[in-house]
This record gives sequence, C-alpha cells and structure tokens, in this order.
Amino acid sequence: MKTIPTVTAAEAAAAIRNGMTVAMSGYAMAGYPKAVVNALVERKRRGEELSFALVTGANAPWLDETLGTAELLTARAPMIADRTLAAQSNAGTLRYVEQQMSRMARLLRRGSFGKIDVAVVEALGFDGDGNLIPTSSVGMTHHLMETAETIIVEINRAQPDRLRGLHDVHIPLPPPDTQPIPLTRVDQRIGTTALPVDREKIACIVETEIPERMGTEPKGTALTRKIADHLFDFLEGEYRHRRGNLPPIQTGFGSIANSIADAFHDAPFRDLQFFCGGVTEPVMELLAAGKATALSMGGLGMSERVEEILAGIPDIERRLVIRNGDITNNAEVIGRLGLLALNTAIEIDIYGNVNSSHIAGSRVVNGIGGGAGFAQNAGLSVILIPSTAKNGAISNIVPMVSHQDIGEHDIDVVVTEHGVADLRGLDDGARAEVIIGNCASAEYREQLSSYLGSARQQCGGHHPQLPSEAFDWYRRLKEEGSMRKDR
Amino acid sequence: MKTIPTVTAAEAAAAIRNGMTVAMSGYAMAGYPKAVVNALVERKRRGEELSFALVTGANAPWLDETLGTAELLTARAPMIADRTLAAQSNAGTLRYVEQQMSRMARLLRRGSFGKIDVAVVEALGFDGDGNLIPTSSVGMTHHLMETAETIIVEINRAQPDRLRGLHDVHIPLPPPDTQPIPLTRVDQRIGTTALPVDREKIACIVETEIPERMGTEPKGTALTRKIADHLFDFLEGEYRHRRGNLPPIQTGFGSIANSIADAFHDAPFRDLQFFCGGVTEPVMELLAAGKATALSMGGLGMSERVEEILAGIPDIERRLVIRNGDITNNAEVIGRLGLLALNTAIEIDIYGNVNSSHIAGSRVVNGIGGGAGFAQNAGLSVILIPSTAKNGAISNIVPMVSHQDIGEHDIDVVVTEHGVADLRGLDDGARAEVIIGNCASAEYREQLSSYLGSARQQCGGHHPQLPSEAFDWYRRLKEEGSMRKDR
Repeated sequence: MKTIPTVTAAEAAAAIRNGMTVAMSGYAMAGYPKAVVNALVERKRRGEELSFALVTGANAPWLDETLGTAELLTARAPMIADRTLAAQSNAGTLRYVEQQMSRMARLLRRGSFGKIDVAVVEALGFDGDGNLIPTSSVGMTHHLMETAETIIVEINRAQPDRLRGLHDVHIPLPPPDTQPIPLTRVDQRIGTTALPVDREKIACIVETEIPERMGTEPKGTALTRKIADHLFDFLEGEYRHRRGNLPPIQTGFGSIANSIADAFHDAPFRDLQFFCGGVTEPVMELLAAGKATALSMGGLGMSERVEEILAGIPDIERRLVIRNGDITNNAEVIGRLGLLALNTAIEIDIYGNVNSSHIAGSRVVNGIGGGAGFAQNAGLSVILIPSTAKNGAISNIVPMVSHQDIGEHDIDVVVTEHGVADLRGLDDGARAEVIIGNCASAEYREQLSSYLGSARQQCGGHHPQLPSEAFDWYRRLKEEGSMRKDR
Repeated sequence: MKTIPTVTAAEAAAAIRNGMTVAMSGYAMAGYPKAVVNALVERKRRGEELSFALVTGANAPWLDETLGTAELLTARAPMIADRTLAAQSNAGTLRYVEQQMSRMARLLRRGSFGKIDVAVVEALGFDGDGNLIPTSSVGMTHHLMETAETIIVEINRAQPDRLRGLHDVHIPLPPPDTQPIPLTRVDQRIGTTALPVDREKIACIVETEIPERMGTEPKGTALTRKIADHLFDFLEGEYRHRRGNLPPIQTGFGSIANSIADAFHDAPFRDLQFFCGGVTEPVMELLAAGKATALSMGGLGMSERVEEILAGIPDIERRLVIRNGDITNNAEVIGRLGLLALNTAIEIDIYGNVNSSHIAGSRVVNGIGGGAGFAQNAGLSVILIPSTAKNGAISNIVPMVSHQDIGEHDIDVVVTEHGVADLRGLDDGARAEVIIGNCASAEYREQLSSYLGSARQQCGGHHPQLPSEAFDWYRRLKEEGSMRKDR
C-alpha cells in the first residue's frame, strides 16, 4: 500500500493554486478543514495572487467567513449562509452557484461543476481497511473525493474521538442500478462507519488540533415562545391519536429554529426523534435531557457543551447517527419517515408561497439548502415565521413573494406569533383568508385584505395577483421606511 | 356476502344530492364514470337545484367538461385541465383546490377535503375475492373509496376486457409503517391486479356500455419538429455512454408532448421505456412499432387506435403496467428510476423558473399536476417550450415568471426551437445568459439582454430582478398587443 506523506498545512496547501476548483468537506456547519484553510489565508495575506472556486456538501459558515474575508473565492457551490459571501455575491464579485442539496450527488457524478482539482477533507483518521473516518459531518465528502483529482486529508485531533462509530455511510448507486434505501427508522444503521477512498489519490496528510466551534446560539424571546406555543397547541390536536408521540422532526437553522428546539423541553410530547440536515446544541440538549431519544443528522454543530453531551451519554451510538447527504436530504427517506418539517422563512405570501433566501427578490442572504426538499416530501410541512420584522416596518406576510423557494402547494401549515393557518384542502382564496386572518399582524391585516379584495375585483376568482401593487410594498419600504400605507 | 343491487344510472345518481362532496374515479384523462354523470346532467337539465364538490385522482377532461358545462360543480380538487372549469374558476364561480398529485394520498387519509359522501367509480368488474378491477386508470380510486361513506360502482362493458391483468396495485402504508417500495424497473409488477374495497360500502352497481374516447391528438408541426431535433441532439450527447438507450422517459400532455412522442419514431434511440402519469396514443404507437418496449402509467387515454394496439400485442401484460397514483407520482420511485422528465410550460424566466399553470399570473389554464414532482426528482429535468406564442406577440421566455410552479433549481435543461440551454452547475447569471442566448427568439433576445443588464446595474450581482419592469411586459401585451418594446 502507498505510503502517504504527513506534511505541514502550508506544504499541503501548496497544491492549491490560483484559478483552481477546490472541494472541501463540510455539511450543515460541521466537519470542514481548518489548517489548510488557515494556510491559504496566510498566503493571500502575504500578497500572493490566489483565488479559487469552492464546492462543499452544504454550508459551513466558519469556512465561508474565513475564505470570504480573505477574498479567496471566485465561485461557491452549493449554498452560502454567511454575511461575507452573501455580500460578495450581491456585489457581483462572487459567482454563487445555488443548488438543492438533494441534487448534489447527481451533479457531482455528472461533473457539472467542472474539473475539481483538489479536495481537502477533515477526518478523525482511517479505519483498518483504509477507509476515511469523518468528523462532525459526512455530507457529500465521498462524492467530492471521487470527483477530485487529488485529495488532502486533514486529521484533526481536536475533534472528539467520541464521534468514532457514530457515522453511518450508505451511498446509493446511480440509476439504472439504484436500489431501495432500507432506512425505516431514525436510529437505524444501514451502512458502514467510514468512507471509501481511493488511497492512490491522497497526496498528503496534515495533522492538526483545532477545535471546531459554532458561534453562540441565539436565545428564545417572548415572540419565539408565542410561536412555539401556537405550534405545540396545533401539534397536540393534530397528533392526538399518537398520544404524545410526534413523527420524526426536521428543523433548520437560525434563531427561530433554535428557540423552537429549546421550547420542546416543556412541550407535552415525549420520545422526540429528529431527522435533520444539521443538529446543533438546542437539539442535543433535548437528547441530554431524555426528551429526545433518537437523532439523525448530516452534520453536528460542535461546541464545548455538545462535546460534554456526547461524552455523557454512554450508549450514544444507539441514539445518534451522522449520515451522508445522499440520505439526510433524500426525498425517498423524507417521505417514508413522514417527517414533521419545521422550517423558517424570510417572507410568505397570502397564498402560501415561501421566500427563504432572497431579501426583496434580489439580495441573497442564504441558500435554499434542503428546505424545499423537506417541505415537498414531509408528512407535514410547517413554516414558522414572525408576522413582522424591523419593528413592524416589514410585514413578513406579503401579497406576492419577491422570490419563491417553496411553492404554495408544498406548505401545509403556517405559524406566526398570532396563530396557525392550516392550509390543507383549501383553495387559494381560502388560504389567503386564513393566512391573513390567523397569522398576519394587526397593523397589516386590513392592508392585506384590501389587496386581496382589489385583486379579486380586477383579476377574477382564482389566485388573483396585482404585481405592480404587490411590489409597491417593497418600494414603500425602501422609500418611506415601512411597508405600511398609513405612514 | 352482501348482495349488491344492480340499478339504473338514474337510480344510482339519486344518492348524490345538492351540496354534497362527491369523489369519482379518473386519472390522467382515463377511467372516469360516465353513466351516473350523464344522469346527473339530465337531472340538472330538468331544472333540479343540484351542485356538488368533486374530488378525483387527477384530471379527467370529459368529466370536467360535462359536469362544468351543466354547472354542476361548486368546487374541484386536485386538478383541472379543461376550458370550462378553468373559466368558472377564473370567474369565481368554482372553487378550484389545486394540489400536487404526490400529496393526494396523505390529504385524503387526513380527511383534508371534508367528508366525502359518495364515490362513483368505473370498473371492469370484480375478481374472485371481491376486489374491484379498474378500467383505464387506477389513480387514487382506493383512497377515494376508503374515504367515502358510500360507493357506486359503474361497470362499463365498453372498456376493453384486454385491460384485465394490466393493473398493478401497490398501496404504501402511511408513516410510521411505510416500507420501501420495491420497484426498480418500469415493467416490474409489485402488487395485485385489483383494488381492495369494503363491499359493505357499495350501495349499488350500474351496468353500462359507453366507450371512453379522448379528443383528437394534435399533430406535430415544423416548430415542434425543430424542438424535437434539438432535444434528440442533446440526448445523443448526454447519453452517449448508454449507446442508444435512454433512462425511462416521463412526458406530460398537450401538443408539444404528443409531437415529441411522435418524433421519437425517427430518433436514434431504441428500447424506449416510459414512466408517466398518463399515456396517450402517440406513446402507444411507439409500443406498437417496437420502438418502445415498456410503459408504466397512471392512466391510459383510450381511443379506437389504442384499443387496436392493446388487442394486437399478444404479450401486452409484459410491456404495459397501469399503476395507482401512489406509485406513478412517487418521489421515491421517480428518483430511483432516474427518469428523463420532459415537461412543457406556459412560460419560463431567464433564471429557469417555470410557470406551467397560470397565464399572466392570475388566469389558471390547467393544474400543476405531477409536473413539479417529476422535475424535482428526475434524473434529468427538461422543459420543452416554443420561444414565442401568438405569432411573436408573447415571448415564452420572460424576465420573471408571473406565477411559479417549478423553481429554477429543479430545471436542468431548456429546449426551444432555437436550441438548448444546459443549466447544470451554472450560477443565476450564467443561466440567464445561456437561456437568452440559446433559447430566446431573435425578436426578444436583445430586449431580454437589456433587461438583464439594467437589473444587474440597479440590483447588483446575484439574481437581480426589476419587478415593475418585468411585469410591464404583461401590461404591454394587454394594452399594446405585444410584449415587444419596438411596436
């Protein structure tokens, strides 16, 4: 077997040259390389002309902030969720190649991102058969390594050894050889604990010891508590026949998602299961408290507290599974498990269409990620959203979304701090009435109803829209400081 | 066993009363009841106050036209694809409850359409175990019968007995008991040939003999031939490694879809397989000619020629499978088979967002149906669309779609009579350039480029949109008769 040299991060990073396309491990904010990234930043800082296109499994904020701030990136796929790259994308200095998580395996196999010169992947090490043991995510690392010409492995000794054995890797064959994925339970293991890798392609190993740390998690507020209360009331009625058990839950990221996870501690449900793209501290706390009993994830957002929880649960490998992205975001699995999908959004329109990525239609704040795929295939698709933003200057419920990531027919239920709109089985007009009536803020309710009335009068009965009036809400916000008409 | 009375259509129809919710069999234009429908129309004609809400599996144009013209419907789910109901919906006299095909099983099981009073279902008869043998579609008939309080079975002796044995019924259990669907081949049979039915619920049987006939199929034109030529050129390159074999094909309905199916006769591919919501004469001709070897469908659009083809293929049950809607539109199966999804649209925008249902944003022409589900999960998602409509007064490629059914990230390839835009791996700006450059009509190319340029200048780099300028295209069409600026 080929001996792989262990080198310094700077020596390894030398393989990455100006204009290349580089792949890096990382999924759902976890498991990205660090030492080689720091070495690249150092080269740039010293004045070297260096920039490249970056492909990962999904988002990895530290990676993006670090590479973005150093102006090292020319293009980024498939998702961004940080301010720096969003700003560069909106300024036109970064090509942001947004993609659905669920399509990445197919696109990588097809070579749709062009030749990938180097893959840099973080690992705990290798198993006895030479397979790579991932760290806090599996993501799309196997496809990235498969596609890349050469591989740099960064072995990070600061990642807890407790992660070993928590991974479950099952890589579906491409069509026409695809077989059913045998997963029917959140905590089920269907694969191996490490990733196959072509050892001949590994150029070098870098040994490092840099702890992976997420930023601080936002705490719940009175507002998010109200949203959670309405949600739990609704879920209690909806799943009464399951007597305190819910379907496996999918949640996203951000302050609402985290606050809802926090609020589950006091909710009248037990034996919670989570099946998510990424899991962070609030969901791990539910596991530590015994409120949750099974977690499946693409990435585990690391913190000191998360490491403590990992260490404190003796049979953690029976309760926590880190899966590859082919499974975590797979329509087949999402549909079969009948997930309760709890997603957040920037804005939603009166018919139920959702914008989760672009402010005012043209300014990206974060990628579409896996949200649309979860909403389309879940057993129950819920959007959690505060009714207003910026002290009421913005209504998050608008006549017509300025950018659409999830269509109206893929949303079952909308929850704001004012209440719940159950859209199932309703036509467009009834959806509009229940969203406006139950979910909109009092200061916008009349304005939305008046819009709906005018639209019906001018366009007729089905799904009436008055685009120029609808988009006037954004003009008013920009020019007058508020979407409200009475100011 | 309970004896079920055989009655006249008028006697059976008496169970349907004003204000009820009625379910009827029917999927992809096939297998709907006829005699009871005619009896209802007759009652209305005689002046009876009678109207009801109708739920079926999917679209059934004859049913909708007949009931719509008689003004018998107050509400309609989950899809319309005919002029009369579209007009009533747009006029506000019909509540149109549009739904994704893939969500219907879940919604029906949940009771989301309210109490269903009567289900009227067409059948060839019953098998030895009392199961119902469907006719030209299976659709969602089992869920509709399960949900309804009482059932009327219409046995239609004019439906060819050759349909017997062509059905394959596999009804997945709802979560948490859902198991993998064992389907891995288009022509594979995984279930039974008839539908389970609670005999106690069957109120009566009506015997009838009314042939099922689709309207005439539109023929291909020079324009559709050009679209087909570009498509085949692209597919030849894309699937070169498969040496003349394509993945299973999904096509929709309408003149483009039919013309493309026609054109496959002369295409350099062999052993074609189709996995569709519905199959009509042009695809059946490919089977008759030996060009196609396996067809799976939710409904088979009947005609004299289709009956002739059915009768003329001795081992038809090895080549043609009629499946229930839980399978034909299932994300799990669509993804596993890696379908080549060929869908059409009303308009597409420069970034790749698709409007397949509403003209100018507010006038529904047909339901979303299964198109979005196929596009989201297919192995390759293609949109086929002429670059203009109404002699060039309308550009089918617009700055911003007026209604969005399929998102930009679920479209891989766009084909018009001018060429092919392969969008895979491209950022939004590159997508816009290749759609405008390769697919737009010469008379709109400059106008679209100029829009993109202004949008970039005013909004910045990522996904720039100028809604008021974009929607001005529709205003110009309405007021000046054309979207073109130079008129």
